[in-house]
Amino acid sequence: MTNTVKRLAALLLAAGMVLPLGAQNRGMGVQVNSPVVNPDNTVTFNYRNANAKDVKVNVQFAGTHDMTKNENGVWTITLGPAAPDIYPYCFIVDGINVMDPLNPDWFPNETFKNSLVDIRGNKPLVHSVQSVPHGSVDYVNYYSKSLGTWGRLVIYTPPFYDQNQSQRYPVFYLISGTTDTEETYHKVGRTNFILDNLIAEGKAVPMIVVMPYGNPSKYFPAGTDLRGRGDMTSEDFINDIVPYVDANYRTIADREHRAVGGFSRGGNQALSHGLRHLDMFSHFCCYSSYTSMDLPAYDRPDINSQIKLFWLGVGTDDFLYEGAKQYMDFLDSKKIKNIKFFTNDKFGHTWMNAKCFLDQSVPLLFK
Amino acid sequence: MTNTVKRLAALLLAAGMVLPLGAQNRGMGVQVNSPVVNPDNTVTFNYRNANAKDVKVNVQFAGTHDMTKNENGVWTITLGPAAPDIYPYCFIVDGINVMDPLNPDWFPNETFKNSLVDIRGNKPLVHSVQSVPHGSVDYVNYYSKSLGTWGRLVIYTPPFYDQNQSQRYPVFYLISGTTDTEETYHKVGRTNFILDNLIAEGKAVPMIVVMPYGNPSKYFPAGTDLRGRGDMTSEDFINDIVPYVDANYRTIADREHRAVGGFSRGGNQALSHGLRHLDMFSHFCCYSSYTSMDLPAYDRPDINSQIKLFWLGVGTDDFLYEGAKQYMDFLDSKKIKNIKFFTNDKFGHTWMNAKCFLDQSVPLLFK
Repeated sequence: MTNTVKRLAALLLAAGMVLPLGAQNRGMGVQVNSPVVNPDNTVTFNYRNANAKDVKVNVQFAGTHDMTKNENGVWTITLGPAAPDIYPYCFIVDGINVMDPLNPDWFPNETFKNSLVDIRGNKPLVHSVQSVPHGSVDYVNYYSKSLGTWGRLVIYTPPFYDQNQSQRYPVFYLISGTTDTEETYHKVGRTNFILDNLIAEGKAVPMIVVMPYGNPSKYFPAGTDLRGRGDMTSEDFINDIVPYVDANYRTIADREHRAVGGFSRGGNQALSHGLRHLDMFSHFCCYSSYTSMDLPAYDRPDINSQIKLFWLGVGTDDFLYEGAKQYMDFLDSKKIKNIKFFTNDKFGHTWMNAKCFLDQSVPLLFK
Repeated sequence: MTNTVKRLAALLLAAGMVLPLGAQNRGMGVQVNSPVVNPDNTVTFNYRNANAKDVKVNVQFAGTHDMTKNENGVWTITLGPAAPDIYPYCFIVDGINVMDPLNPDWFPNETFKNSLVDIRGNKPLVHSVQSVPHGSVDYVNYYSKSLGTWGRLVIYTPPFYDQNQSQRYPVFYLISGTTDTEETYHKVGRTNFILDNLIAEGKAVPMIVVMPYGNPSKYFPAGTDLRGRGDMTSEDFINDIVPYVDANYRTIADREHRAVGGFSRGGNQALSHGLRHLDMFSHFCCYSSYTSMDLPAYDRPDINSQIKLFWLGVGTDDFLYEGAKQYMDFLDSKKIKNIKFFTNDKFGHTWMNAKCFLDQSVPLLFK
């Protein structure tokens, strides 16, 4: 028995040494956790690095703050309290932005590396995992003829999708922003939980949500020369993604049952793709963004009968607010019916607001 | 038109400034890509940071090397050539390990932060996305009574799972290693593509693969006191995960059609869970690991009729090789039939070998 215990202890110890890259941040003495959400909704951030000269934390509820090194070589700070929500943050270690090494929850993104802190609060939020029926999130690969390579989609199917084999569903195409990936609306936007909760409350109709990657150039190896390839993003979306979804999921494959929306660049793409293809889409959601004022759709005499929902949300503190507001005014000047929604918080162009916009607009889809 | 072009340009520019954390690494002048896989299977790593004093790269095909700063403030190095495969790497910037800011492909892990470089080579590998029917990868949440909280699973369903509603499938439970998450066998192990390819070649039977999280303590907020909670991992696996899968997927819910396997700590867990529950499992795969030699199963007179497959793989260069080999010898001394597989490369305890073990053992399951 002693021998076994020794072996298992060795294994557990040894297994902890798998791939020792990054080991400078692992607790070698005192147990350190980070982030720690305290009962008063403040957050304690801890970062073990005895050699760093200067460590800051940047968190989206509080901005950038210096951390203090304690006697164990752990840099620490407590910030907040903050309203319950999910906030991106990173450490700035001697000027270098790094994720929290102790936190596996990260922000899928092409460039910046942020971790996520989830302040759960005392009552469930619209993005919280709750005791309601859950849909599924599928990670799928599709071959795009437009791109000439494989693409990726994250697809939410609503609760009981597998059981209700005779039921077909409307589809909401939802595109994230610049430098985001196809995972961002899942991992940061918590689209699946927001849909689960809205459906459980009877506020939203069961629907499929398709989350594409807004920057398909990244499917190619770095350095690939893509000049002269035309508008790959649009062609991929219209000619490959939508047909793939209709062929592989139980969709209602008509314009009345297709919506397209997005955040930031994804909002621009959603409107640009959708308003050029009114034969395919009838519901439009634009979050923290706007698009061209030179599309033929705006001058169609039947435009208001073609569009079932035109929903625009932006924060008054968003750095794109001015453009978004001008676009809203333009739609009004064209007498194109639309719904405007403004947040007045300090969170401007962030995923805290992106989640809020989803919560506000999804109940209006397909009704 | 000019106004529109200006607006769109402003939007595109502005959208690139969303969440400017990490911006020190974004190309502000010369376009920089990283990693760049060259035609000769060497890899060029680039890291923009004009202020860093010392930048290294650590990559699993070559070890740690100093990078050189060029006139644009970009640190660069070309390493290899390396055999086509997927290799974890990170930059070490003034002693701090960081992911490659220009690379969205990362290694899901609790602690270390690595990026992944995919050297595709000239012919498809077993983990390559190929023009074959693809299964789906579902990210699901289940409520664990054993844990008293929500857990996560990544579940592969084979090609045509949705179409073949009358078909039921065997299930392979596959657990990743210490500090890995439930995503690691998907994102790093490429389990879905390996299964797709083996099934397409007729080498493996269509099966469901369930990838749990080997460390459910991480479901709780950091700092939660879990003392006295017993063997939560085992209870969650046996009493919650397996019943959840049987209730929600079209499984063949008997011991003959359940396999359990894992890498490193996951291999230990797989054998420990499985050999204590021969009423539930009949196939066992242990990758780069071993488990206790004090289980009642070893002394069952009918043990060889109970175990349909006992597959053990380890690299001779693995730091757990000695323990794994002793465990193999122990099984032989007990006359317990098993299949041993050794890799002789320098990749020891890595995911290059973990993929290889999957490729070798999955074809033997459920036959």
